[in-house]
Amino acid sequence: MGVLPNANRQLRLKARPEGLAGPEHFDETTEPVRQPAAGEALVETLLLSIDPAMRVWMNEDPGYVPPVPLGGVMRAGGIGRVLESRIPGIEAGDLVQGRLGWQSHPTLAAEGLQKLDLSLGDAKAWIGPLGTSALTAYFGMTAVGGVRPGETVLVSGAAGAVGQIAAQVGTLSHCRVVGIAGGAEKCAYLTGELGLAAAIDYKATDDLAAAIRTAAPEGVDLYFDNVGGPTLDAAIAGMAPKGRIAICGRISQTAAAELYGVKNLGLAIGKRLRIEGFIVSDFHDRYDEARAWLAGELKAGRLKQRLHLLDGLEQAPTGLRMLFEGGNTGKLAIRVAK
Amino acid sequence: MGVLPNANRQLRLKARPEGLAGPEHFDETTEPVRQPAAGEALVETLLLSIDPAMRVWMNEDPGYVPPVPLGGVMRAGGIGRVLESRIPGIEAGDLVQGRLGWQSHPTLAAEGLQKLDLSLGDAKAWIGPLGTSALTAYFGMTAVGGVRPGETVLVSGAAGAVGQIAAQVGTLSHCRVVGIAGGAEKCAYLTGELGLAAAIDYKATDDLAAAIRTAAPEGVDLYFDNVGGPTLDAAIAGMAPKGRIAICGRISQTAAAELYGVKNLGLAIGKRLRIEGFIVSDFHDRYDEARAWLAGELKAGRLKQRLHLLDGLEQAPTGLRMLFEGGNTGKLAIRVAK
Repeated sequence: MGVLPNANRQLRLKARPEGLAGPEHFDETTEPVRQPAAGEALVETLLLSIDPAMRVWMNEDPGYVPPVPLGGVMRAGGIGRVLESRIPGIEAGDLVQGRLGWQSHPTLAAEGLQKLDLSLGDAKAWIGPLGTSALTAYFGMTAVGGVRPGETVLVSGAAGAVGQIAAQVGTLSHCRVVGIAGGAEKCAYLTGELGLAAAIDYKATDDLAAAIRTAAPEGVDLYFDNVGGPTLDAAIAGMAPKGRIAICGRISQTAAAELYGVKNLGLAIGKRLRIEGFIVSDFHDRYDEARAWLAGELKAGRLKQRLHLLDGLEQAPTGLRMLFEGGNTGKLAIRVAK
Repeated sequence: MGVLPNANRQLRLKARPEGLAGPEHFDETTEPVRQPAAGEALVETLLLSIDPAMRVWMNEDPGYVPPVPLGGVMRAGGIGRVLESRIPGIEAGDLVQGRLGWQSHPTLAAEGLQKLDLSLGDAKAWIGPLGTSALTAYFGMTAVGGVRPGETVLVSGAAGAVGQIAAQVGTLSHCRVVGIAGGAEKCAYLTGELGLAAAIDYKATDDLAAAIRTAAPEGVDLYFDNVGGPTLDAAIAGMAPKGRIAICGRISQTAAAELYGVKNLGLAIGKRLRIEGFIVSDFHDRYDEARAWLAGELKAGRLKQRLHLLDGLEQAPTGLRMLFEGGNTGKLAIRVAK
């Protein structure tokens, strides 16, 4: 086990942002490491997941979860190595995942800590294609979206953490998948590496609805929406009759000064569209099923995910900002320790 | 049978409206009555149903059905008395329903003509609580909306043809039903005659979202949407977690110069809303089931519908306009003959 550290570095929420979040909204603090009480473990943070929802948690009223309190350590999921454990079934040296927060050496209760099954994949797999964003993609495409072989699937934010997996759940379900992403490099990755049928570079497109019509002339059967806003409007216009829209996220709107109004919703009548929002935690009791499928495809080399790593806890606020500016390709995570 | 008429009065589409439709968009013509060929019947129109969808059919591209051609007789459902029949199973004197159109004495093919089962109700019942708008309400509430006892139901356009029935499918399903309508008289009708728990007069309300919150403090489980636009936005804000929205119509937007943008759609994620558009004809093979239920409730005196009748074929364009200006209470129909 070696020598235990004596300092826990933390990033605490200093102010609630109006628009994008950045380093200016956090204070760095250092506290002595706390020895675990019975039912707790001291963990060394290895990887922290950076997700769009975290920006929402910074609001005074996130809507479906309590906000991160002002002065509190920023909430975040991640993976760590157990340094000392008083939790039955978890030992020093085990890799665990849970709500570690933006801190280097948290002491955490057993609830919410899960020992990683390394037979499914290593730590990077667990933060990426076996992680929460992959589970989100899986349930959004299957349970919510009801993907069926032969369908035309449209995915926005397709080069992002959730989007990459959603697109591949589509291709692996024998669908024709069209991705929307920002920039030629991301689009080339989608059609090259990930094997999508087509990719639309929204930054190079004046008329997104026309681009969707060209890429999916028979209409879209399933739209997996990560971005909301005008992209959702264009997608609705491109839906096939009886199409489904799984609303997973709305990153274009999360930090917007003024919300975009979706004008095409009335088309849902004539097209008989089903539009459904979801949250991955509603499928909590089916995570094992999803991870088994994802791990199988991963080991077979059919499922890929680009991991975008930033080094150092202090990079977390910058990473969160990158998500909203489209600076990342694939799953963004902070490597706090190796 | 008496003497057969020799003139068929018709209203033909003269010009496609930009906004509301009115008498200026129609020409009156008279043609000799056409004797039925084999497989046809000559019908005397008694009642014509006036429905919001008719305004959509006047557009160049209605989206899900062909447009009424310029110069063509205006498409409309209605009820008539058979004057002469060469259709097996239909005899002179029978009451039939079908797509009669805005004309006094159409000669129609067997397809699309249905003999009324008068054991379920009379002609007025068949145009009202057994008619297409009632079927629309029934399937929207049950098959699409999945109404369940004990839920809170919100219905917009609640004093209209579809809305009155939707609201009562709610009360008869043991739900707490809140209606939205325009004007004190309509609201009094909803809470008085129809037994709704509350009615919101949107014309007297500055903050519809707040009014919905007051009327449904625990949130709305099922919103039956007849109007779209800002009302839909307010309803989304008032939905309970896992709420459903059945989008039946959008009368506020049908003839709008500019479409309203719905801003609250992002709330569908955290609330896990399901929003679904539908068209009654998708449930065609279940019409008998719906009519049996509706007729049972009607005979038991538990289901009511106010019928708003205008006299004379020439009133049809005015009637269509009334729908969009909120001038009707309940099911609007044109009495062409007694």
